[in-house]
Amino acid sequence: MATGSNLSFVLNKVNDVEFKDKPVPKLKTPHEVLVAINYTGICGSDVHYWTHGAIGHFVVKAPMVLGHESAGTVVEVGSGVTTLKVGDRVALEPGYPCRRCANCLGGHYNLCPEMAFAATPPYDGTLTGYWAAPADFCYKLPPTVSLQEGALIEPLAVGVHIVRQAQVTPGQSVVVMGAGPVGLLCAAVARAFGATKVVQVDIVQKKLDFSLGFGATHAYLSQRVSPEENAANIIAAADLGGGADVVIDASGAEPSIQASLHAVRIGGTFVQAGMGKDIINFPIVAFCVKEVTARGSFRYGSGDYKLAIELVAAGKIDVKKLVDGVVPFNKAEDAFTKVKEGQVIKILIAGPNEKEGATIDTKVDEAKLKEAEAAKAATGSTCC
Amino acid sequence: MATGSNLSFVLNKVNDVEFKDKPVPKLKTPHEVLVAINYTGICGSDVHYWTHGAIGHFVVKAPMVLGHESAGTVVEVGSGVTTLKVGDRVALEPGYPCRRCANCLGGHYNLCPEMAFAATPPYDGTLTGYWAAPADFCYKLPPTVSLQEGALIEPLAVGVHIVRQAQVTPGQSVVVMGAGPVGLLCAAVARAFGATKVVQVDIVQKKLDFSLGFGATHAYLSQRVSPEENAANIIAAADLGGGADVVIDASGAEPSIQASLHAVRIGGTFVQAGMGKDIINFPIVAFCVKEVTARGSFRYGSGDYKLAIELVAAGKIDVKKLVDGVVPFNKAEDAFTKVKEGQVIKILIAGPNEKEGATIDTKVDEAKLKEAEAAKAATGSTCC
Amino acid sequence: MATGSNLSFVLNKVNDVEFKDKPVPKLKTPHEVLVAINYTGICGSDVHYWTHGAIGHFVVKAPMVLGHESAGTVVEVGSGVTTLKVGDRVALEPGYPCRRCANCLGGHYNLCPEMAFAATPPYDGTLTGYWAAPADFCYKLPPTVSLQEGALIEPLAVGVHIVRQAQVTPGQSVVVMGAGPVGLLCAAVARAFGATKVVQVDIVQKKLDFSLGFGATHAYLSQRVSPEENAANIIAAADLGGGADVVIDASGAEPSIQASLHAVRIGGTFVQAGMGKDIINFPIVAFCVKEVTARGSFRYGSGDYKLAIELVAAGKIDVKKLVDGVVPFNKAEDAFTKVKEGQVIKILIAGPNEKEGATIDTKVDEAKLKEAEAAKAATGSTCC
Amino acid sequence: MATGSNLSFVLNKVNDVEFKDKPVPKLKTPHEVLVAINYTGICGSDVHYWTHGAIGHFVVKAPMVLGHESAGTVVEVGSGVTTLKVGDRVALEPGYPCRRCANCLGGHYNLCPEMAFAATPPYDGTLTGYWAAPADFCYKLPPTVSLQEGALIEPLAVGVHIVRQAQVTPGQSVVVMGAGPVGLLCAAVARAFGATKVVQVDIVQKKLDFSLGFGATHAYLSQRVSPEENAANIIAAADLGGGADVVIDASGAEPSIQASLHAVRIGGTFVQAGMGKDIINFPIVAFCVKEVTARGSFRYGSGDYKLAIELVAAGKIDVKKLVDGVVPFNKAEDAFTKVKEGQVIKILIAGPNEKEGATIDTKVDEAKLKEAEAAKAATGSTCC
Repeated sequence: MATGSNLSFVLNKVNDVEFKDKPVPKLKTPHEVLVAINYTGICGSDVHYWTHGAIGHFVVKAPMVLGHESAGTVVEVGSGVTTLKVGDRVALEPGYPCRRCANCLGGHYNLCPEMAFAATPPYDGTLTGYWAAPADFCYKLPPTVSLQEGALIEPLAVGVHIVRQAQVTPGQSVVVMGAGPVGLLCAAVARAFGATKVVQVDIVQKKLDFSLGFGATHAYLSQRVSPEENAANIIAAADLGGGADVVIDASGAEPSIQASLHAVRIGGTFVQAGMGKDIINFPIVAFCVKEVTARGSFRYGSGDYKLAIELVAAGKIDVKKLVDGVVPFNKAEDAFTKVKEGQVIKILIAGPNEKEGATIDTKVDEAKLKEAEAAKAATGSTCC
Repeated sequence: MATGSNLSFVLNKVNDVEFKDKPVPKLKTPHEVLVAINYTGICGSDVHYWTHGAIGHFVVKAPMVLGHESAGTVVEVGSGVTTLKVGDRVALEPGYPCRRCANCLGGHYNLCPEMAFAATPPYDGTLTGYWAAPADFCYKLPPTVSLQEGALIEPLAVGVHIVRQAQVTPGQSVVVMGAGPVGLLCAAVARAFGATKVVQVDIVQKKLDFSLGFGATHAYLSQRVSPEENAANIIAAADLGGGADVVIDASGAEPSIQASLHAVRIGGTFVQAGMGKDIINFPIVAFCVKEVTARGSFRYGSGDYKLAIELVAAGKIDVKKLVDGVVPFNKAEDAFTKVKEGQVIKILIAGPNEKEGATIDTKVDEAKLKEAEAAKAATGSTCC
Repeated sequence: MATGSNLSFVLNKVNDVEFKDKPVPKLKTPHEVLVAINYTGICGSDVHYWTHGAIGHFVVKAPMVLGHESAGTVVEVGSGVTTLKVGDRVALEPGYPCRRCANCLGGHYNLCPEMAFAATPPYDGTLTGYWAAPADFCYKLPPTVSLQEGALIEPLAVGVHIVRQAQVTPGQSVVVMGAGPVGLLCAAVARAFGATKVVQVDIVQKKLDFSLGFGATHAYLSQRVSPEENAANIIAAADLGGGADVVIDASGAEPSIQASLHAVRIGGTFVQAGMGKDIINFPIVAFCVKEVTARGSFRYGSGDYKLAIELVAAGKIDVKKLVDGVVPFNKAEDAFTKVKEGQVIKILIAGPNEKEGATIDTKVDEAKLKEAEAAKAATGSTCC
Repeated sequence: MATGSNLSFVLNKVNDVEFKDKPVPKLKTPHEVLVAINYTGICGSDVHYWTHGAIGHFVVKAPMVLGHESAGTVVEVGSGVTTLKVGDRVALEPGYPCRRCANCLGGHYNLCPEMAFAATPPYDGTLTGYWAAPADFCYKLPPTVSLQEGALIEPLAVGVHIVRQAQVTPGQSVVVMGAGPVGLLCAAVARAFGATKVVQVDIVQKKLDFSLGFGATHAYLSQRVSPEENAANIIAAADLGGGADVVIDASGAEPSIQASLHAVRIGGTFVQAGMGKDIINFPIVAFCVKEVTARGSFRYGSGDYKLAIELVAAGKIDVKKLVDGVVPFNKAEDAFTKVKEGQVIKILIAGPNEKEGATIDTKVDEAKLKEAEAAKAATGSTCC
């Protein structure tokens, strides 16, 4: 059972966070469970709320608990729950749809306009002691999947959803623009879906080096040339013939999106996953005459968490490789700073209901921080 | 049988056309037929080659017969042809793919990189006396469909392909940007596919007036306001709730494409059909977070001609309404000028193997011509 | 508001029905509404429970209110309901899924294993005074759609679901086996979906005569010949060339299903909708080498009710034609007998909260009853 | 270049084969190549023609060269061929469609009614010295894929097509009925497509033992119990919960097909690939109420060979494991007998244009032969 304490990491306003002890939540329906949080990863959006106080029209107007990439342990189950029991270790899917609108009933609950999503204003997030959630949004981890891996299911589910939107099938060639956590995971998922060639593209060589040992079969360091020329280079580097079957943009950067449309083959598929500038210059005629299919990708939906867990359990994606370190709960702000610096891939925050110690040096590196901010400013990307 | 004469309407170079008597073509394989051309419509691309000598990287470098929207009468059949006989009236599908590449074998022959398309350099078009074609690209007209209607099957097939790319299903709401021939036909096809609401959008009220009697259930005169505001107005005008299920751009105009992405609902579909500027400002974040599916549409492919003819035969689309008049073959240049003026929807050119007389005044109206050119310059659209 | 009386038509056990006054239901969640029932149609399954006490493993073990094809008027709305208000006229979708299983979250709530479906044991049906239901399963009728038409939305939604399972697209040819209410509605929906040829097949000429004025373009009276021969006759009768694009079995009869597989073209689609014998002789090699796609169809799901109402509102399907008459609530048993006789298509039962009088002679015709029972015995069909 | 000799293995009539020297074929179009055959596998259909003289309505009426699972070396290229050169090692796709019918133009050339398929009467097969074929149906083998593996691309392409018909996606559970060559390959392809659990089912334990080292994760020895009970056992053996996402029948045996429909989950997919009795008892109501999608699978089509080669080249499927041995061309009849015995999976026939020696004992085992014939008689299966 939950104790009386529910320490939480709260964003009061821009650049102002604090630890607060909030009431332990009560189960609101018989179909909910209460989960003690063990590990939480940090997403670019968490950092963006911290540093900017808003993403698009989502504005932080009142103190909000941060975090939404969590795994935990079930400590209480509602009377109607048959699929979980106390002690089960679970990955949390942190967005709760209305279940009644046309999108929900039609199998696209990620598009529910009434979605209550953790750490998206005005909803509190999961950097907290106890979290109440519908049982069907808590996914039991198999014995072979650790709680730290469980905290990485959320970003992996983002990648699964993107690759599903791209409808990647065995034997295809896939180009992934961007080698942040989501881009890296997209590449790994594409491989797990049977893609024969997966080309990771970024402007940072170190990220590409990592990618070749993670999901990519080829890597391309983006040059300061035209999008057409970068696209031609990508095609040449991986011998893609008339272009890639699928191109995924996980960067949000305008030049990457432009190159994507030139790198995709006639009749191929493009998926936009990264978020950057609202409006960009887009090669619409190339898109049109090649009969490209383009799709946006937003969060994750039906079946994505289940598949993400299976990919980890089956050993197809080793998400642990993404983790640069684990910090105790009281070092959460330091961890946020590390992510802001842009030099780590993933840091996990332990607890507060987790006794394991920190494994990462949380000292801020001012030089790296400035470098990262400059790189983001150049591309206009706010996440991924 | 074909006589020795094969009068053709030839584009020598920009703004330089002439009538030439070319050799009657021979059947090259046992699967071809020879067709005497009865009627030919004029496409925006024909006019563009005439006035500019090129579309994109397709450049007129040698004299080329114009025209590709034709119907005719079979005058000779190859030894391997079992589906047609002399005297059959046919609509011509004027592009011949290689039948051997991955796109052809995969059912997307419109994306064949070796496509030989009439009146696209270096291939001659169909404003000629006799035309040799594979029998499977000549579609027999049912008794109830006239040869003049047959010449309109080509643009109707363009509309069918677009609406199929949009995967319009019964009960949906569809917005069509642009009320040129293709936009009007898209609206009519969308209705025939069961769309409940079809909103036609244009900057010319007269075109909208026509559209309401043709395919559209609602019309919206685009205003000089932001794309978001035009989108909101479209949604309000037709009571589309959270947006249209499908938006088709048949204008190629940047503001229309921008409004399209704001008018489409979450999870909806956008199809780009019109051709304008190569690169435009595009609301990529709106596209991404709404998980829009976007597709280009290029010409027509498997089954499109067959369905276009059935829609006419079944009385679901009255393509005759689009025809402003018919001119004799020797007035072809005047007809081109009329289309360039932008004040007619469709003119048909009779013959040369067709005896029916002209029904249209071909005098050029200089004022209308200037007005049309100004309108096109404003939007950057080259066709549709 | 609901009064204290809630007269209901209850099946106690096989062939034993009675009228009982049950408590008016309470709203269980803020998302429910209370509906006063105006009209209810009778389904073959209602009659089957009455005459047999069971369908498959669904067995009537305790008294159960019959009926599930209803329209009514909202008399109370829960505090969380924003889409309906008191006085709204609604069609009721009478099955309530769990909203939490993989099928529900995946957009296939009709396949929910925990579905609570009206008049399917142990759940009470809608032949009652007041009915509490989730607001999102109550579909507001447009002003042009009457409450009697509203009661026919349920069987129409069955037809919509079947035709969607068949993925009927414009220009296709469709054969519908069986001309009971569901078969007739399938034919009408297929027409509304743009099918060019719709062939209705039955063993009763009178039903076929009706079908030609309702949805079918062609009708074929099934002969006592081999399935291959009946299929060849159907193909010849409607000039279907290599076979029908789509065949729908709405009969459940073994010979019809066999003929279906011979009537469908290579690469075509077959949908099984009718329910008859559990196991039948099936031409599996024909199915295999023609690469037929076959699907079952079960009830209705996401979007089906909405589209059914739109088809009626748009005037595309005139469901009123199916109604042979309306009886007052206290004549419900007579109406059941009429349906059992098999000589009416649809009878509506008014009320109990509906003042309109009966329009049908409810006298039982013993001869017709025997004839109908013999016909059903011959085919093994239990519904449709 | 081809020499004058073209030794071929010819079926004159039932149980009557001989070696004949036939003329070396000439290239008929500029798009063809001439291929010297290196290795050929034996299919169940080859054996069936040998022992029965017919399969369905395909009847051997004149002497016919057998064989259609071949790889060879290009010895001559037509003037229009740009994708192959002399010396290239290729896998042969042995069926040539018309390229002009609706199925060909629509991307389903395997359904072409004018298909000319090797070793299907009246067309000669590939157990011959030289074979002329369209260049686009000859697939160049990568350096890492041997000619012996090349001869196994044909049955692998059958498996690829089946698994594509089943639309297997990552994380799914797949049951494969039958562990003959096609069943084994289906299991391996399903794994390569990301299926998490693949259950192979057969009546011979030895085949199941092999399957566990090839493609299957689980194996089930079919029992002499009801189909429902076998299905329940399969579900229990692999912990499939409500049933398998996909069931593939590669046996053609009636009890297997029946069990398939009980083993597949609600909303799952069933593919019929095996060929046995024309008509079987089929649980149609289970199929209907579970809304199963069922598809036939016939040969292979667009993209299947390409993917089959990629799966071998990428090391995902080790087709060599299937080969029990290689015999010289003059021992072809012995090899056919071995296959008829049913105790080998695959034997390859070398040459006649291949110098490598035999690696298998071709002595006939009369006891095994009888056993195999008895087993086939019991299930009614003629292939796979």
